[in-house]
Amino acid sequence: MNTTVHADVSPPVLHTQDARGVHYLVLNRAGTFNSLSEEVLAALQTALDAIALDSAARVAVVSAEGKVFCAGHNLKDMRARPELAYYQKLFAQCSRVMLSIQNLPVPVIARVQGLATAAGCQLVAQCDLAVASSNASFGVNGIDVGLFCATPSVPLVRNMPAKQAMEMLMTGEFITADEARARGLVNRVVPLEALDNELEKLLQTLLGKPREALAMGKALFYQQRETGVEAAYQLAGQAMACNMVHPVAQEGVQAFIEKRKPQWPAPAP
Amino acid sequence: MNTTVHADVSPPVLHTQDARGVHYLVLNRAGTFNSLSEEVLAALQTALDAIALDSAARVAVVSAEGKVFCAGHNLKDMRARPELAYYQKLFAQCSRVMLSIQNLPVPVIARVQGLATAAGCQLVAQCDLAVASSNASFGVNGIDVGLFCATPSVPLVRNMPAKQAMEMLMTGEFITADEARARGLVNRVVPLEALDNELEKLLQTLLGKPREALAMGKALFYQQRETGVEAAYQLAGQAMACNMVHPVAQEGVQAFIEKRKPQWPAPAP
Amino acid sequence: MNTTVHADVSPPVLHTQDARGVHYLVLNRAGTFNSLSEEVLAALQTALDAIALDSAARVAVVSAEGKVFCAGHNLKDMRARPELAYYQKLFAQCSRVMLSIQNLPVPVIARVQGLATAAGCQLVAQCDLAVASSNASFGVNGIDVGLFCATPSVPLVRNMPAKQAMEMLMTGEFITADEARARGLVNRVVPLEALDNELEKLLQTLLGKPREALAMGKALFYQQRETGVEAAYQLAGQAMACNMVHPVAQEGVQAFIEKRKPQWPAPAP
Repeated sequence: MNTTVHADVSPPVLHTQDARGVHYLVLNRAGTFNSLSEEVLAALQTALDAIALDSAARVAVVSAEGKVFCAGHNLKDMRARPELAYYQKLFAQCSRVMLSIQNLPVPVIARVQGLATAAGCQLVAQCDLAVASSNASFGVNGIDVGLFCATPSVPLVRNMPAKQAMEMLMTGEFITADEARARGLVNRVVPLEALDNELEKLLQTLLGKPREALAMGKALFYQQRETGVEAAYQLAGQAMACNMVHPVAQEGVQAFIEKRKPQWPAPAP
Repeated sequence: MNTTVHADVSPPVLHTQDARGVHYLVLNRAGTFNSLSEEVLAALQTALDAIALDSAARVAVVSAEGKVFCAGHNLKDMRARPELAYYQKLFAQCSRVMLSIQNLPVPVIARVQGLATAAGCQLVAQCDLAVASSNASFGVNGIDVGLFCATPSVPLVRNMPAKQAMEMLMTGEFITADEARARGLVNRVVPLEALDNELEKLLQTLLGKPREALAMGKALFYQQRETGVEAAYQLAGQAMACNMVHPVAQEGVQAFIEKRKPQWPAPAP
Repeated sequence: MNTTVHADVSPPVLHTQDARGVHYLVLNRAGTFNSLSEEVLAALQTALDAIALDSAARVAVVSAEGKVFCAGHNLKDMRARPELAYYQKLFAQCSRVMLSIQNLPVPVIARVQGLATAAGCQLVAQCDLAVASSNASFGVNGIDVGLFCATPSVPLVRNMPAKQAMEMLMTGEFITADEARARGLVNRVVPLEALDNELEKLLQTLLGKPREALAMGKALFYQQRETGVEAAYQLAGQAMACNMVHPVAQEGVQAFIEKRKPQWPAPAP
């Protein structure tokens, strides 16, 4: 970690949105490798809460300034307060951010341009989708400082086979972007100079789908995954029937029958 | 979907069986891309119920006429009845077919010779095993018409890593047969002209195993997967002990010791 | 199975440890293909129980004498006692060994130098990590003798995609070491002559991490995997806070800040 003599007064997370409803959350602490300090976590939570309230939001992108995507928790801050209650609060704050990503009604994409470490790797794993540059690498190496990446293990083992996750957690060793894609941790890998182009292609694909159907589907996906298969089918059947009576599906299916492009209503303001 | 002026009076599913106990269910609505209309679903249910009652059944194969394996639900039928209760009934009917595949006491193999879309992809995912031709492709693209493939997501996320499933569900994009194999959605991929030969090899392998052991094992597999590991071992240990006292295992082990081929009794009629 | 006229009076499992706290459990029944007889299972249980009580233990390695890693249960013994109660006891004994591996507070590595069959493949799947030689192969082929590998299916489906596990269980067919690595069943594959070197590299990596953090992390990993994601985050956050107040993490983080190697206290005797 760099020593910062003067506090950085720039926003810890740059939160912007474009006319299409794409929210961009940019980790803005390159000087401390975008580590998830309380300040950064609070800014992420604020941004995620705002997106949850924005009925015009369509997609969220989590990216980072600088060469490192995210180096995990801020170890200097953590060392400064060796108290159980403090750590409990910190990890609860971090877990709330992670669950907010899952609970957001829009797809959340990680744009990974470099190293993703510990809680930074967790952030990638927790997003719905991830695109990475071929120079990116991924590790859950808290064990190198004697701190097993317990919270990162939650989305990690839900994203790749168990022994592969366990090896990363126990050895602290990193995997390449290509290996991350093969395991299921990221969806697409391209050279760094093509990363924004690949992200934009994915955004345009997602923006072509109705918000309401993605929201219902995303919620159902995570809910049904945690139940037995019979309960999963009951939940999914009900979700799909509700989706089907919704105007977006009625119009979409009608357009399909008429062999034309669907004219979806703008999401309610 | 094709417009059919005259109702198709041929059977919606061709159900045959051979002397070996292999049941063949052939989707027979190539003109409507073998979409899972109520008519097709009802015929599949009837066939699956019959197989469940046939103690001489050994394996079931689900295949399709024409160039498309299965295009999912029949959107024209669905658009014609924009009622919640209708859709609930339709998806319940479809889910019952899917669960019947899992509950069948014999292995169910999907033979995929072409496009498998939405509930058609779900059908592949729900089968125990799948062989595909290299020209086949797989997608859960309901989202293209504003209808998130909620029920297909149930077996999909139980067949491949989560982000890979989510990308297919949110983007509607298709994957090749080779990619489907790499992810775990299908077991084997061969050129179209070799598909029946590959299926036959798999059938002969399965026909060489005793029905009773496959039935006990298949049921146990799906049951234990949904529990914690300690409960899973208890269920599995009990299942294996019951399997071991069964004449088929006693004979199989005895034959192994005597270095001869087992003489298994024909399944009870 | 070989016929052994004279009982083998050598230890069924060679249990040694080195000065570093690495415990080596070597299956020592090459003449019966290291099958998991009651004698071998009892010896494994004794060894695992001893490791659980050894606070200086750091890693455990399960390996085997001879050309075969482990051929599963001893079929001759099983055939000799065709009683439900006997089989229930046998599988319970075996499952207890498997769960003891998961419950051990140190990483357990399978070193697979050859064929791993049925409960032998289960043993590999149940270990936390596995390194294999490129000539090794893996199968759950009980079905060939009419005995579905029910207990092996428990860790198998928790280590690879479902259809891939099902194909192995229903067909009895073997997969190569490279295929096992691609699926997630083993972590690393090297030529046989490089196997010990690869194992030693992995050992040295693990020995560089503090025992306490690995123990907390391993237990948490398996626990959180069985719960829903919200409960998982609560368990993991608490585990990580407890890990962070522990002296090993305090020292590890301090060393990181001071850019030096951590000086971890030896584990309590």
